[in-house]
Amino acid sequence: METKTILIKNTTILANGLRKGSVLIEDGKIIDINNKIRFWGIDEVIDAEGKILIPGLVNTHTHLSMTLLRGLADDLPLDTWLNEHIFPREAHLEGEHCYAGAILAALEMIKSGTTTCNDMYFFMDEVARAIDESGIRALLCHGMIDFGDEEKRKGEYKETLRIIDKCHNTADGRIKVALGPHTPYTCSTELLNWVRKKADENGLKIHIHVSETEKEVEDSLNDQKKRPFEYLEHIKFLGPDVIAAHAVWLSGAEIALIKNNNVKISHNPLSNMKLASGISPVSDLLANDVCVSLGTDGVASNNNLDLFQEIKTASLLQKVRTLDPTVLPATKMLEMATINGATALGMEEEIGSIEVGKKADLILVDMKTPHLTPYRNPVSHLVYSAEGSDVDTVICNGEILMREREVLALDEVEVMEIAENAAEDLISRS
Amino acid sequence: METKTILIKNTTILANGLRKGSVLIEDGKIIDINNKIRFWGIDEVIDAEGKILIPGLVNTHTHLSMTLLRGLADDLPLDTWLNEHIFPREAHLEGEHCYAGAILAALEMIKSGTTTCNDMYFFMDEVARAIDESGIRALLCHGMIDFGDEEKRKGEYKETLRIIDKCHNTADGRIKVALGPHTPYTCSTELLNWVRKKADENGLKIHIHVSETEKEVEDSLNDQKKRPFEYLEHIKFLGPDVIAAHAVWLSGAEIALIKNNNVKISHNPLSNMKLASGISPVSDLLANDVCVSLGTDGVASNNNLDLFQEIKTASLLQKVRTLDPTVLPATKMLEMATINGATALGMEEEIGSIEVGKKADLILVDMKTPHLTPYRNPVSHLVYSAEGSDVDTVICNGEILMREREVLALDEVEVMEIAENAAEDLISRS
Repeated sequence: METKTILIKNTTILANGLRKGSVLIEDGKIIDINNKIRFWGIDEVIDAEGKILIPGLVNTHTHLSMTLLRGLADDLPLDTWLNEHIFPREAHLEGEHCYAGAILAALEMIKSGTTTCNDMYFFMDEVARAIDESGIRALLCHGMIDFGDEEKRKGEYKETLRIIDKCHNTADGRIKVALGPHTPYTCSTELLNWVRKKADENGLKIHIHVSETEKEVEDSLNDQKKRPFEYLEHIKFLGPDVIAAHAVWLSGAEIALIKNNNVKISHNPLSNMKLASGISPVSDLLANDVCVSLGTDGVASNNNLDLFQEIKTASLLQKVRTLDPTVLPATKMLEMATINGATALGMEEEIGSIEVGKKADLILVDMKTPHLTPYRNPVSHLVYSAEGSDVDTVICNGEILMREREVLALDEVEVMEIAENAAEDLISRS
Repeated sequence: METKTILIKNTTILANGLRKGSVLIEDGKIIDINNKIRFWGIDEVIDAEGKILIPGLVNTHTHLSMTLLRGLADDLPLDTWLNEHIFPREAHLEGEHCYAGAILAALEMIKSGTTTCNDMYFFMDEVARAIDESGIRALLCHGMIDFGDEEKRKGEYKETLRIIDKCHNTADGRIKVALGPHTPYTCSTELLNWVRKKADENGLKIHIHVSETEKEVEDSLNDQKKRPFEYLEHIKFLGPDVIAAHAVWLSGAEIALIKNNNVKISHNPLSNMKLASGISPVSDLLANDVCVSLGTDGVASNNNLDLFQEIKTASLLQKVRTLDPTVLPATKMLEMATINGATALGMEEEIGSIEVGKKADLILVDMKTPHLTPYRNPVSHLVYSAEGSDVDTVICNGEILMREREVLALDEVEVMEIAENAAEDLISRS
């Protein structure tokens, strides 16, 4: 990356409360906030009057390439949806499809203010290619499934190692690779043990789905005689490097296990609602100081990647679950969507807040719009009134990816065409 | 209104399924669909390639002027929120505030595709002025509260009759007036009896809040020895002309009363979630063929007027309430937001669907955007992926209020300024 300086001036900055001021970016990092800002030798000056500067949003559970399956099937029982619609299409997936779906997803995320995602899917080197081109940041993992089959397991190890080897710490450090055991019930104990060992040896994160449905818990009680998190504790799998997506059906004992092992939870409210999985006890997790962040899941069960929807819905869903309007207040929601996400991905020293020395992953939200009027309480407006389309400018790693709603990083029309063609090709195969 | 012809061509029309075609509008009405469309003597031709034409959305429970209170107070217990924040501000309301809040609300609704609303508040002639200027359609009522006080009651009758006299059937028929008893617990039986008599005599609709909170039901059981809908049945208040907002806490017997009296229900999922009121058993109401439509409530408890958010959330919330992903499917959601709303307001012969002879209340949604790609199942996309900002063009009563996202009916900057100033003035008084 070339050295470049960007000055964002006349803005309101969300950093431990709100303050008016300017932010100076050099060589991809925030080097000054509101203080002795120099105005000479600046490559780009962004006048952000009427806009709020917040950290780029972090989406901690995605399957980016599933954008190709958007709207394919809705309102169906889970097994019909999976077995008759999703799995048959996924069986025909090739690398080009995954690239096309991921670049569409990256475009959608840029337009709605997400600068970092945590993605699990297949052909992850093709996903990495899309991430690299788009300019956003991602933690990627190959989703491993062995169903207890040794041949499959070996294949999954091989693919995981290939992706780590090829993609980890690429794209100026924007791409990192994690280990991705799919779930405790689609992966054997051998596979999970291998993942734990690899994570310990190489300092890699682990991304896994746990306790998404009530049936999963029932099956685990039948098969393992333990609930999912209890089983994972039993095999010594849990740890602070585990990002567990969903965590809907939790006992009090499991919440204690999550807390004691400092497991990171990715809460996916819209997907959990749409698939009728259930409501995660997020306010209980937060009361136990668990690090809860937000994810969209794949768009086949959402059906978009707008993290502003997750922010609002996560808060409202807990309020109605507990019949307590004070839980998950606005300030907490912005933390969940930024610094908690960064912490989950092990990037809290680099991103997730606006601080001198951190990477410049920043977004400007335009507040001069009817549904954000009157301008009174910007944090409330960001959480309860704003939508992804209010995002005006997006900077990731010090590069301007979108400016005044014009995407600079990608050709929008071309990306939509690539995705449209890939989706058509994929559907025609099944 | 002057005679004007508008041709919307090359569009996809949602009318008993989807079909490609054109719609011809003359003198405010749809006069031809897809058939022998003439191309001469047309005042306005709208090329709607890549866009979907659907009925204008109907929001069946609003307090428009509360836009001035947006973001004023969130995440608080209901009584603190009402008694320390909302009521003290409302005590200082004057007509100009209500006009300013309502015109901001109308602008926001136009931009997100709502062409008709059902509003209850104060200074309703000022709200009517805003509706008239904005070009949208509304059923308005003065919110009546007497707390059993005869003096108050007489004042409420007088104000209601003044608003009916001044505003009913004005603005080219776009404005109608209803009777607005606030709730069964803030209105005396005398007041409710007067409302029922007036409605019968004059063929007016009745707009009322019922069973929003569990406490309301408990209080009703204490005070009336009956649940709210049972009490309303007992005093012979219920009927097909009643639009009951919220209806969150319902017994099976009350659902039967709602069904048998053909009461119309306005479901407000986001407000019910944000205020932690509870989850209405909407799927049970629909299973009983009750006419359920959607409302945003006031933005102080939402905090916006984007009906697309209600559409998606209403479906997802029932799926997770029942743990059944098949309830409230996409097609049903669009009906709830259009024809069911029209039916609730007694306007089903005029609006709510795209049919020859109906008023031209229509919106175009732009589908050429990343989060609506691939273009596959437009109904799913409209319900689960779209946001209010995807609305491209809005026509109400045959007038183009917004075209390619440019609002023609109002000056956006001026309206936001009026609202900003009014909000500041209101807050400075308390």
